[in-house]
Amino acid sequence: MIAARLHKYHDPLAVEQIAEPQITAPHDVIVRVGGAGLCRTDLHVQEGQWADKSGVQLPYVLGHENAGWVHEIGSAVTNVAVGDTVIVHPLVTCGLCRACRAGDDVHCENSEFPGISVDGGFAELLKTNARSVVKLDPTLHPQDIAALADAGLTAYHAIKKAASVLYPGSRAVVIGAGGLGHIGIQCLKAMTPAEIIVIDPSEHARALAAESGADVTVAADGTQADTILEMTDGKGAEAIIDFVGERGAIQDGVAMLREAGSYYVIGYGENINVPTIDIISREINFIGNLVGSYNDLSELMTLTAQGKVTLHTSAYPLEAVNDAMADLDQGRLQGRGILVADAA
Amino acid sequence: MIAARLHKYHDPLAVEQIAEPQITAPHDVIVRVGGAGLCRTDLHVQEGQWADKSGVQLPYVLGHENAGWVHEIGSAVTNVAVGDTVIVHPLVTCGLCRACRAGDDVHCENSEFPGISVDGGFAELLKTNARSVVKLDPTLHPQDIAALADAGLTAYHAIKKAASVLYPGSRAVVIGAGGLGHIGIQCLKAMTPAEIIVIDPSEHARALAAESGADVTVAADGTQADTILEMTDGKGAEAIIDFVGERGAIQDGVAMLREAGSYYVIGYGENINVPTIDIISREINFIGNLVGSYNDLSELMTLTAQGKVTLHTSAYPLEAVNDAMADLDQGRLQGRGILVADAA
Amino acid sequence: MIAARLHKYHDPLAVEQIAEPQITAPHDVIVRVGGAGLCRTDLHVQEGQWADKSGVQLPYVLGHENAGWVHEIGSAVTNVAVGDTVIVHPLVTCGLCRACRAGDDVHCENSEFPGISVDGGFAELLKTNARSVVKLDPTLHPQDIAALADAGLTAYHAIKKAASVLYPGSRAVVIGAGGLGHIGIQCLKAMTPAEIIVIDPSEHARALAAESGADVTVAADGTQADTILEMTDGKGAEAIIDFVGERGAIQDGVAMLREAGSYYVIGYGENINVPTIDIISREINFIGNLVGSYNDLSELMTLTAQGKVTLHTSAYPLEAVNDAMADLDQGRLQGRGILVADAA
Amino acid sequence: MIAARLHKYHDPLAVEQIAEPQITAPHDVIVRVGGAGLCRTDLHVQEGQWADKSGVQLPYVLGHENAGWVHEIGSAVTNVAVGDTVIVHPLVTCGLCRACRAGDDVHCENSEFPGISVDGGFAELLKTNARSVVKLDPTLHPQDIAALADAGLTAYHAIKKAASVLYPGSRAVVIGAGGLGHIGIQCLKAMTPAEIIVIDPSEHARALAAESGADVTVAADGTQADTILEMTDGKGAEAIIDFVGERGAIQDGVAMLREAGSYYVIGYGENINVPTIDIISREINFIGNLVGSYNDLSELMTLTAQGKVTLHTSAYPLEAVNDAMADLDQGRLQGRGILVADAA
Repeated sequence: MIAARLHKYHDPLAVEQIAEPQITAPHDVIVRVGGAGLCRTDLHVQEGQWADKSGVQLPYVLGHENAGWVHEIGSAVTNVAVGDTVIVHPLVTCGLCRACRAGDDVHCENSEFPGISVDGGFAELLKTNARSVVKLDPTLHPQDIAALADAGLTAYHAIKKAASVLYPGSRAVVIGAGGLGHIGIQCLKAMTPAEIIVIDPSEHARALAAESGADVTVAADGTQADTILEMTDGKGAEAIIDFVGERGAIQDGVAMLREAGSYYVIGYGENINVPTIDIISREINFIGNLVGSYNDLSELMTLTAQGKVTLHTSAYPLEAVNDAMADLDQGRLQGRGILVADAA
Repeated sequence: MIAARLHKYHDPLAVEQIAEPQITAPHDVIVRVGGAGLCRTDLHVQEGQWADKSGVQLPYVLGHENAGWVHEIGSAVTNVAVGDTVIVHPLVTCGLCRACRAGDDVHCENSEFPGISVDGGFAELLKTNARSVVKLDPTLHPQDIAALADAGLTAYHAIKKAASVLYPGSRAVVIGAGGLGHIGIQCLKAMTPAEIIVIDPSEHARALAAESGADVTVAADGTQADTILEMTDGKGAEAIIDFVGERGAIQDGVAMLREAGSYYVIGYGENINVPTIDIISREINFIGNLVGSYNDLSELMTLTAQGKVTLHTSAYPLEAVNDAMADLDQGRLQGRGILVADAA
Repeated sequence: MIAARLHKYHDPLAVEQIAEPQITAPHDVIVRVGGAGLCRTDLHVQEGQWADKSGVQLPYVLGHENAGWVHEIGSAVTNVAVGDTVIVHPLVTCGLCRACRAGDDVHCENSEFPGISVDGGFAELLKTNARSVVKLDPTLHPQDIAALADAGLTAYHAIKKAASVLYPGSRAVVIGAGGLGHIGIQCLKAMTPAEIIVIDPSEHARALAAESGADVTVAADGTQADTILEMTDGKGAEAIIDFVGERGAIQDGVAMLREAGSYYVIGYGENINVPTIDIISREINFIGNLVGSYNDLSELMTLTAQGKVTLHTSAYPLEAVNDAMADLDQGRLQGRGILVADAA
Repeated sequence: MIAARLHKYHDPLAVEQIAEPQITAPHDVIVRVGGAGLCRTDLHVQEGQWADKSGVQLPYVLGHENAGWVHEIGSAVTNVAVGDTVIVHPLVTCGLCRACRAGDDVHCENSEFPGISVDGGFAELLKTNARSVVKLDPTLHPQDIAALADAGLTAYHAIKKAASVLYPGSRAVVIGAGGLGHIGIQCLKAMTPAEIIVIDPSEHARALAAESGADVTVAADGTQADTILEMTDGKGAEAIIDFVGERGAIQDGVAMLREAGSYYVIGYGENINVPTIDIISREINFIGNLVGSYNDLSELMTLTAQGKVTLHTSAYPLEAVNDAMADLDQGRLQGRGILVADAA
């Protein structure tokens, strides 16, 4: 089959013929990829930022945001059948460790992460397992929703945590209305009564934020922390939801945070670097956020089916993966990039 | 009356005659101080570290950990009577703002903090209000429990938060078994089924930790993070409860924290300085902790009355406040220092 | 002033001149009533159903859903000023007991309930205290929102509890789309992503439910439990929110409840009468709901100001209180009845 | 192998030779039974009370509280090996439905319940699956802990729910200090700071309660509700934990419940039958409790290994199963009855 593999850090991906994945365990599922989302993490992987954390052996196939149709199943798979439309949770988990048993499968002690630690979905076929496939309405098109498998799921997961502190009259400040941010805004709108304030330097992104449900948008022009403080009688917001995590976002964000408030870290790049005296005297919290659980993905698919979460995408043929990555890197990509193999 | 006042940052306190506080509002309560705890924060106040945060005008009376007997009450006070033994919550709160109405009176929008922002309890009499006095069994001696009003309350409050993530088989690592730490250990023992692991450089402190309920004690000798990781199959602990917050404690503590775990910040001094990629990839949290609420103090008094929390103290006459502060500063103070005015 | 008093159970109210309430304590507040909601509980009071529970002495003024303008304040009141527009929380609470300190002021150990246990708001003036008045935007008209003070607040409070079990894809079944129910539906819409299914016998009420945000409405024609089971693959709904509590609603409602689901009791009349073997084998819960807290009322006022919760009302002059009660009793009252004194 | 089967409701069990269970699916696990707890539910099964709920076909093997050693494993089992000592979670669950994915495997949509709905552990061998076996320290003896698999797990699960409302100063009233109750008391002691009050008619049971950690024991002599009200200033207890559920326990228990308190239903027999006006005016809750999850069982095993939970047992040879059932039925059984097959 055709796949896009990384052979060497910093090099372009090689689009090449490789062997098809095989069913080797009773819960294995092979998915014919209908759409594979392209993510800023793919650029970070290419740059080698995840080399140590993932321990992956090169070459391997990138692509961790996948949807498609079930192509083949192992002997013990009961929850999907060949032909079913599915979105693929990014992790392959064991179902037996404490975390899996607690509904926190993201922290499975025996997980693999296709596209990060083993072969992913920039290919015609992807190997995953029964625990990772969410069955969808057959009328849904995999390429329309693939990017929700990781980017969307991460945004949803963070918002679900933040929802527990958001009541009518509280404020959620979203930093960054890009790929994840505009999904996060839709999730906030669907799941909380909070006033949604969105900060972004781009007028285009702010317009998208307003369409997505922002009550107020604020330009990130260096005065945004003061603006938020003014809007909140000098007290700041109950929740800061940071999809950027670099270029000064954190320092600004902490300045906007209310006493006893929580700062949700999603975007990454810089350090959280805050004096402990501020953390204790203001009694503020920093909450890390990784991708969501399988049930989170299933819930997000419900919001999508209900029309409460939609996604802007631009499709590329799988062969054009390096063009897509360049477009993403250089800010030319409108919405979320989706790679589509010819066979699909 | 006699009181110990700070006239100039970095100077010793002046023990001097000042005017007695007066009832001026219907909910005012004046307490005859039976014991006033001495806290490391008093040293920080003397050094001027809180000057900007508190905005206090010098000279003023220090002392924010107070217990005693009700001396005089305002016209609308119904919950205590003259002569009642009371411990005094460190904040004077309004009871009308959202935070007060939510049980989170520590974040009252109109609070004062006697001993930090207005006159405190290093004196014969202390002015507070009806919302701040917890009535105690008359057999309790104020000087035995005064230090629970702030130090103990802070430890209790942090443990109560941590309790929500501690289940049988989980590990709570306590960094620092000093004044707050050894109360925290007793609270952990009383309120959670977690295995309690305590780290401290001092053999004396570790012995106190073991008496207080630690299941395991570990010397802080530079290898403690590795020790904890070994004890947890390389995974780290579910909760790190840091009563130190300086001298490298944080870097060590973060290294011991399990995926999806929470780091409770109580001690202060250094910065939390952690790459966001670690925060998100490990999905860890940092939870700020200030002093507890009035109900927290009431609950802690129950644990004390039940004998589940006890405190080591060393009493000093109020006149010896500067000796006591020097002893604290130079590590000569055994247990918690308590100042006792002659009149009491 | 003019007031409507109950002199004898089962008799009509007497509209008569009585003495004005006086400020007697520093936190007292006297409100000029702009609108007083009429509630089915007023009929139950008249019938004597609350006589034992309230211990009230006749005669007294009914009316427990009040809004208006501040007329006079005690010496220690700081949160409102004369002339402010306010809605009045139905309970007068102490602010000092554990429940008040925990944000659960409804369970205040020293509360009074104007209109139930002391004189209420079917009058020109109402005596309450500083802890019970929520300051509103001066453009709001008391008679438009008075009924939210109790009926709305009860609905909001129950929905806030239910929200914690409602995720995208879950179902909330609302039994009864009357006065409370249609507010509950709006709150569900504003605060949760659940699918909202509303059951009512009246076509008119179902139409109102649909306008209020119901996703599906079902006629209460005796087959409603089967209908809900069909809609949920035979499993039932995660939350049943029962605003009726009589005429068979409970038996039906329990039949629609999913394993591990929760049944929110708001309407009252019949008994919960369920075999314990069903409660344990299905692991279901019954959650009692009284009126909400002060903060709940403040949050509901935010939803109202945001246009997310609106109320249908019919105004009557205070003098026509007995006509209004008859209209309510005999089902002629459209929306919520509001009594308005001439002076207001 | 030898097994004890029910051929006809109301008849004694037949101890007879039957075919050994076989591995038929990749996650199957066959356990050599080292001890099988006898439970009042076995009597109820024999009487046919569960016939409709379980839909089981007679004859079948009873026994739903099992521990032993792994005898054989399916091809995909990775979490245990042949020879491992294990306790067996009572349900065989799918790991794929939403409930399993949420950590609530007890509400698995595809579960079986060996001993209730399929062959159980009153036999030499028991078939279960990889998701149901908790690996134990090899020094533990299955017959000592088997009864924790269901009775203990149910008690633990209820206490874990109740723990969330129990703070220092709160009261937990345990009704019934029998098989489940005395485990519940130990769990309360290990996991909460509540004052533990235990009600039982038997002096022997009250003595066991006191040994297990009860702070106060009260005879169930008809005045127990008044006694509890006296002990709580007329207000009642925050949590009632009812292990009886019949013979008037419920009416008494509800009378002892504080406003806003919760009633945990574990024992079964009678109905919960309470006027809705009481449920709403007191804002009380009824919480159903079934057996705990796999993680709950694992946590309970930790408490057992730590010596915080111990169990009184009386062993019987499997052949004497009908004697054991008669002893249980007629109150002659001391502690929990455990059946032990010769081969084990």
